Amino acid sequence: MAPIITLTTDFGLGYCYVADMKAVLISHCPDVRIIDVTHEVPRHDILCGAFILERALTAFPAGTIHLAVVDPGVGSDRRILIVNIHQQIVICPDNGLITWAARRLNGAAAFELTWRPPQSSNTFHGRDIMAPIAARLAAGAKVIDVASPFADPVMIAIAPVEARTGQIIYLDSFGNATSNFPSNAVHLADARSIFVRDLNVGPLRKAYSDVAPGEPLALIGSSDLLEIAVREGSAAAQLQLKVGDEVRLT
Amino acid sequence: MAPIITLTTDFGLGYCYVADMKAVLISHCPDVRIIDVTHEVPRHDILCGAFILERALTAFPAGTIHLAVVDPGVGSDRRILIVNIHQQIVICPDNGLITWAARRLNGAAAFELTWRPPQSSNTFHGRDIMAPIAARLAAGAKVIDVASPFADPVMIAIAPVEARTGQIIYLDSFGNATSNFPSNAVHLADARSIFVRDLNVGPLRKAYSDVAPGEPLALIGSSDLLEIAVREGSAAAQLQLKVGDEVRLT
Amino acid sequence: MAPIITLTTDFGLGYCYVADMKAVLISHCPDVRIIDVTHEVPRHDILCGAFILERALTAFPAGTIHLAVVDPGVGSDRRILIVNIHQQIVICPDNGLITWAARRLNGAAAFELTWRPPQSSNTFHGRDIMAPIAARLAAGAKVIDVASPFADPVMIAIAPVEARTGQIIYLDSFGNATSNFPSNAVHLADARSIFVRDLNVGPLRKAYSDVAPGEPLALIGSSDLLEIAVREGSAAAQLQLKVGDEVRLT
Repeated sequence: MAPIITLTTDFGLGYCYVADMKAVLISHCPDVRIIDVTHEVPRHDILCGAFILERALTAFPAGTIHLAVVDPGVGSDRRILIVNIHQQIVICPDNGLITWAARRLNGAAAFELTWRPPQSSNTFHGRDIMAPIAARLAAGAKVIDVASPFADPVMIAIAPVEARTGQIIYLDSFGNATSNFPSNAVHLADARSIFVRDLNVGPLRKAYSDVAPGEPLALIGSSDLLEIAVREGSAAAQLQLKVGDEVRLT
Repeated sequence: MAPIITLTTDFGLGYCYVADMKAVLISHCPDVRIIDVTHEVPRHDILCGAFILERALTAFPAGTIHLAVVDPGVGSDRRILIVNIHQQIVICPDNGLITWAARRLNGAAAFELTWRPPQSSNTFHGRDIMAPIAARLAAGAKVIDVASPFADPVMIAIAPVEARTGQIIYLDSFGNATSNFPSNAVHLADARSIFVRDLNVGPLRKAYSDVAPGEPLALIGSSDLLEIAVREGSAAAQLQLKVGDEVRLT
Repeated sequence: MAPIITLTTDFGLGYCYVADMKAVLISHCPDVRIIDVTHEVPRHDILCGAFILERALTAFPAGTIHLAVVDPGVGSDRRILIVNIHQQIVICPDNGLITWAARRLNGAAAFELTWRPPQSSNTFHGRDIMAPIAARLAAGAKVIDVASPFADPVMIAIAPVEARTGQIIYLDSFGNATSNFPSNAVHLADARSIFVRDLNVGPLRKAYSDVAPGEPLALIGSSDLLEIAVREGSAAAQLQLKVGDEVRLT
């Protein structure tokens, strides 16, 4: 099976940034299979990138290498991480991108990348440093030959997920609002009512069809997290939701 | 030649939905070649998805498997179809997505998918049910082992295409407006004038350059359907066209 | 190593145009690796396409075939070019798309495509003429068997890049404004101040972190061209920049 490298970035698809990275990956590892997760992480939105990266780790098979580049600190002295996690490898800047994956998946082992190329731009380490390393690891290089164990990656603040108060963390293209409550926390809480801000959207439902078209509901989404949705509508638009809005189980 | 699976969805590219499906496809069929047709079908727009799916069937070689997921009824008891058509296979929800392909291409043989996975979300059958089946068929499984013949797929209403009155069915990114008149119907009609709503755009033209820049025209587009366009402009914007607008051959 | 074909177009991702071309490429060259550079060149923006095409040539390895389709003249008698350049091959309409690559990379040898398919639409030569040729070249055909040497490709006007006055040529998705000054011209000029329109953005900087957040700066971007940026912001929005704005080294 060809090695797999996934890409998660905030580059957009309008210029050649993504292809620049792919050219490096192919040049260093000709048989690699490259899968785009998304290039539409909102610019510099590390929190959003962190949630999507955890999704990618859950979806892909053992051995996959994930290259995640949301990197507002490029050109500064921020570290670059290699993380062994969930039998896969993540390469990303040390700015909190690994937070959600490290919290939800057990046994993350972090390393600081020590390898640097002979030449590098100051503005595009995704292409100049991280892509060559991803390709070399895909081609069989060992993490320990290019990186040193590192105990203390940057973690960003995300509300506790085991309590009864959480927050909206992502609005998808359908207008569904994902919260940071994993399904097991919701089932443990056994709430009679779920509130988003001060709107009661009722108890946990099983499917969109449990409510009438146009009605809001709360259900476990395909990410195994609690979602606020509107049947055949957009919860984001109809309920004017935004990232950070409070979600409560009562 | 590696098996080919194409994807046509309304998921957008901003989250991990598309990559979730690709991870399943690769896991079950490591040498599959995956081609994105589009993930920008307007949300829940089955009619638009139906037109694009027919285009994909016309473009790809025999043996291709097309996975089309525009699925507002996910989580309800709507069927999932497998359709042998044009020497290719379509997997899609039974909600009308197959309509245009079945009308334009001969010999569609429909089956109802009977296989279900041990576990499935209620919100993402594209990933949990349809993608595993697409991958298994790509890897050599037989349709008849996972599905039963089914005579009556859902068909959606599209205006007759052999008469002199049709409608705009798609506005592309250039602002060209595709109608549901196939080229042979246009040639048969031999119309002196082609109207969109009450605007006469003249007789059938051969190329954009047959009119002056900024002028509207009617021609057979690359989809082998009658299109209303504006040379070096956007017919959608300039003529304020929308899907459903009437087109007449007189 | 599988042959590589890249795609640079103004088709957008919303319809099946891109997949139509990929179906042709795969049908004629089953083991080809297809890489999307971008399909979001603004419609008919040959200048933008020309800059991105040069980037692709710089990024990809020898032997790569680049198919670039920004083609407002499709259906007219404009030529189709095959260009040997930088040990790679470009296939594109003869409308100026090759200008920037030909200026920045040495030894471009142009040919006029003489091959035509038995049938072709008047609106989609990317699919009907250019893609089959790209696939045949990828599969080992010789340029000289399908094209004739051609001395005079169309070149579009771009301000001289060796002088002290240039222009903004591209605004990327981050709002960074790329000029047409290559790094060597900037280093030669050794300017004390760099102006965009009448705003002094200071001397050349090495990295975003050389200025305070929200401040504008000029630096050599990852394209090896002078860029105007705003640290942790959008230069395009904050400075109201547009393509064509004057940039001066003083």
